[in-house]
Amino acid sequence: MAEKERTDENTIFVGNKPPMSYVLAVVTQFNGGSDDVIIKARGRAISRAVDTAEITRNRFVTNSKIKDIKIGTEAITNEEGRTSNVSSIEITLTIK
Amino acid sequence: MAEKERTDENTIFVGNKPPMSYVLAVVTQFNGGSDDVIIKARGRAISRAVDTAEITRNRFVTNSKIKDIKIGTEAITNEEGRTSNVSSIEITLTIK
Repeated sequence: MAEKERTDENTIFVGNKPPMSYVLAVVTQFNGGSDDVIIKARGRAISRAVDTAEITRNRFVTNSKIKDIKIGTEAITNEEGRTSNVSSIEITLTIK
Repeated sequence: MAEKERTDENTIFVGNKPPMSYVLAVVTQFNGGSDDVIIKARGRAISRAVDTAEITRNRFVTNSKIKDIKIGTEAITNEEGRTSNVSSIEITLTIK
């Protein structure tokens, strides 16, 4: 069980599902005892990551606040082997 | 001329045009002598605002860095008078 306590445990990867799916995942992390939850996304899902953080903070875990926001660029290689750059975001929410 | 030095002068609002339009606007602001440029967006344009900051920083104004990133929620009233919430982002780039 202690083995399971990796950094990824507190990380929610936001994709193409409705924001509420990810909000639920974040809330579950906090309810499970995490002090910090990291919300990550790339490309067009970045807007949804911001929605996830805002909905969590304003409606579900109102004692949480934004601890840190990082943006970056990642190189993605597609099936044909071509590389393209995609923006990324990492939002850390905390209840500490 | 001094009158023109408002806060909005340094602010680029990102909408639905291709990211390079906004990159050009940010580069123009820096070339015009601004130390800080604020990139703002709402809703789905948030991803494009991150693209704009990243492309500017990595390719065009390589001495610029991210000074601050804020996210928030704004209430929008549509034509029928209904109110909905939309997420927003504010990225400050600096060359100071």
